[in-house]
Amino acid sequence: MVSTLLHGATLLTVDAENRVIEDGWVAIRDGRISGVGPKAAIPEAALFDEVVDLAGHLVMPGLVNAHTHSAMVLFRGRSEGQSLLTMEGWYNSIREPELSLIASDIGPAVKLSCAEMVLSGTTTFCDQYFFAEEIAEAVSQAGIRAVIAYGIVQLGDEERGAEELAKASAFIEQQRSADGRIVPWFGPHAPYVDNSENLLRAEVAVAMKYGVGMHLHMAAGPEDNEETLKRYGLTATQALDRDGFFNGRVHAAHCLDLSDEDIAIFAKSPAASVAYCATAGLRSGREGICPAVKLREAGVVVGLGTDNVAANNSYDMVAEMRVAGLVASHREGVAQPISSRELVRMATIEGARALGLDHEIGSLEAGKAADIIAIDLSGPGYSETPDIETVLVYSGSGRDVRHVWVSGERLVADRKLLRQDYAEIRAQYSSTYEAFWDRVAKARKVA
Amino acid sequence: MVSTLLHGATLLTVDAENRVIEDGWVAIRDGRISGVGPKAAIPEAALFDEVVDLAGHLVMPGLVNAHTHSAMVLFRGRSEGQSLLTMEGWYNSIREPELSLIASDIGPAVKLSCAEMVLSGTTTFCDQYFFAEEIAEAVSQAGIRAVIAYGIVQLGDEERGAEELAKASAFIEQQRSADGRIVPWFGPHAPYVDNSENLLRAEVAVAMKYGVGMHLHMAAGPEDNEETLKRYGLTATQALDRDGFFNGRVHAAHCLDLSDEDIAIFAKSPAASVAYCATAGLRSGREGICPAVKLREAGVVVGLGTDNVAANNSYDMVAEMRVAGLVASHREGVAQPISSRELVRMATIEGARALGLDHEIGSLEAGKAADIIAIDLSGPGYSETPDIETVLVYSGSGRDVRHVWVSGERLVADRKLLRQDYAEIRAQYSSTYEAFWDRVAKARKVA
Repeated sequence: MVSTLLHGATLLTVDAENRVIEDGWVAIRDGRISGVGPKAAIPEAALFDEVVDLAGHLVMPGLVNAHTHSAMVLFRGRSEGQSLLTMEGWYNSIREPELSLIASDIGPAVKLSCAEMVLSGTTTFCDQYFFAEEIAEAVSQAGIRAVIAYGIVQLGDEERGAEELAKASAFIEQQRSADGRIVPWFGPHAPYVDNSENLLRAEVAVAMKYGVGMHLHMAAGPEDNEETLKRYGLTATQALDRDGFFNGRVHAAHCLDLSDEDIAIFAKSPAASVAYCATAGLRSGREGICPAVKLREAGVVVGLGTDNVAANNSYDMVAEMRVAGLVASHREGVAQPISSRELVRMATIEGARALGLDHEIGSLEAGKAADIIAIDLSGPGYSETPDIETVLVYSGSGRDVRHVWVSGERLVADRKLLRQDYAEIRAQYSSTYEAFWDRVAKARKVA
Repeated sequence: MVSTLLHGATLLTVDAENRVIEDGWVAIRDGRISGVGPKAAIPEAALFDEVVDLAGHLVMPGLVNAHTHSAMVLFRGRSEGQSLLTMEGWYNSIREPELSLIASDIGPAVKLSCAEMVLSGTTTFCDQYFFAEEIAEAVSQAGIRAVIAYGIVQLGDEERGAEELAKASAFIEQQRSADGRIVPWFGPHAPYVDNSENLLRAEVAVAMKYGVGMHLHMAAGPEDNEETLKRYGLTATQALDRDGFFNGRVHAAHCLDLSDEDIAIFAKSPAASVAYCATAGLRSGREGICPAVKLREAGVVVGLGTDNVAANNSYDMVAEMRVAGLVASHREGVAQPISSRELVRMATIEGARALGLDHEIGSLEAGKAADIIAIDLSGPGYSETPDIETVLVYSGSGRDVRHVWVSGERLVADRKLLRQDYAEIRAQYSSTYEAFWDRVAKARKVA
């Protein structure tokens, strides 16, 4: 593998001390960070295959998108005026056309999403959807890192549920033997609403067997708690706790309507985390806002997620940091209760922790995988920064990401994809999109 | 003047029919739009000095930032954790250091702001601040269009108030005779809190005499209404109505706490408008949110403003459209009560209307000034757009603006400033910033 020395940049390490190193360097060997430091201690350039001068850039760990559904890019811009966090809005905008999706749609859609993510600085994302094998294949071609939660749907049929669980297990077995950029998980699609109690308990048992996490929506729509309150007198969080989810690694998206008791369940669990999806939450017009400040005060790990780009409609994690900060200010009634520094941590190391990957990624530290981005600071928004994190979060943009490495492999140089042909990705996506929506139109005519 | 033909682009005209023209053209002669149409009716290229192929671009009217304070870029990133929409937060973060501002700081600061605005597609902005002459000089060098409201401060001194009013009148006289890109207005700094009743009434009289508008903050901080309720038993809006502001053109920023009665005052006034500053409002942690939907339903013109970049911290009007839409969804409890199409109108023609400039700018229509931007649609966020407005607002970024014309003069080509030297602007800003904050530090030592 190519060894690389990056130098001359401002380093935002996101390490435990939040070190910012002016005119610093990062050394990459065998796909990992072999050293990080200030100019005074820079290693000899001759020792590296490649030396990259990054004066005028901010170098930081790649961003971690803690919740999305990458194949759903096909729905972008198609749900204006619909709340995707209510059953009705979701059904009209997503579920009904989704029935026309076929396996061959997935690859081109996910490839476009991966291109969009990596070009804007996201090096790891957490996905949950059907067609996990096709997603994994496309992600693997793109070269970025992903937790892929196999979306388990039961559709009221116990036998189908059991079959899906078997397929999910096979997916996990198969992915665990691959190159390590893909981490397979379970993704119960709609606990209690779709997945039965029995199935959910079986999923927990299998997750424990394999030591993998579970990623699901929680307290997103008003229906989530209604269903379990009606059936068991418990909130969705409490029901999932009763059924063993919080004994293992559980990563919950949205969490708009958590009670103090629900928060306590997250807090007592060693590996429970939340994906705060501020933009998708606001756009839905739901009254609730994820209590990110309270969760963090209770010690819960909170990452940031864009959610799918039908609900967002962008993968830009810099924009997401900004909106997450603004929304927290509004919810708490004070200016910036989550500092810019903490927002950067949520979009990097905290997201990594939520996915059980903080030993591997999320900060610039020797030994970690070399998932690194370089942001061009030449734009006027970055001039004279008293505090690089504030300026990044509130004046920055994923559009300013110029170079990206994942496991030491350069995936983006000068804002261009290196491993894949962008024009081809666009062209394939374009024909897939047209064929898909034609299929939807035909299905609607028949119905 | 150079005549120019732009062709091959998707045109978002923002005309009364919201026409979107695929593969359209815009002709520019003598600084004005001389024609707009589809490919079938394109004029002969040989008739123009310059022909620009804009295939793969969106061409639309330049964006209108309906509220900012461009010199305040010097404070960017300096008020983390402080609400600038409360008297205390404003005093600590802004007012105290502001006392160290000197006239020669203004030009370099405003030039940086103008560069940032025009590079991200803003061709007109509404400014209110002290040092109006210096602002006008810098704006005029930048070549963009601005309403500059002369910020009138009284500081409890009737004589000083009268002097300021005289200076403001002189500023208006002088600017009216210039090239027309600068429109001088009055900007009473803090009605009732600082400007006395007498001074306010005198301002209205002068505004009427010159036929110019008045731009001020209204119902932004909790103090605004408190002060007038205590003194007169009236909200700030009602007091300003009593004192004659709503007889002329009045453009009010923020308006977080408007009662139904206040909204009715705006609605009955022929030339009253609001600058909805969604990002700055959220960031402040204030409970109130500008009732943009209600105002619009009542027939009030509502533009979008970034506010100063200490409160935002960006001039990106595409990001501002997005946040404005998200915040309205949250406030109203429904998904997207303001459609993307309407958000685009608010950031263009409605902003122009708020500034009394809709006869001149805000849409692509023959006869209007050629204030035009071209947005590069090659990024993955723009792929396969069912609806260009949705995609622009929710997936777009001011970073994608590639070319900008103001009054037919090309100010930005390929993302680079043409009229001014960007490196020089950055260098001058840098030394000004350092000198200013040194001065602040010295003043603090003395105090």
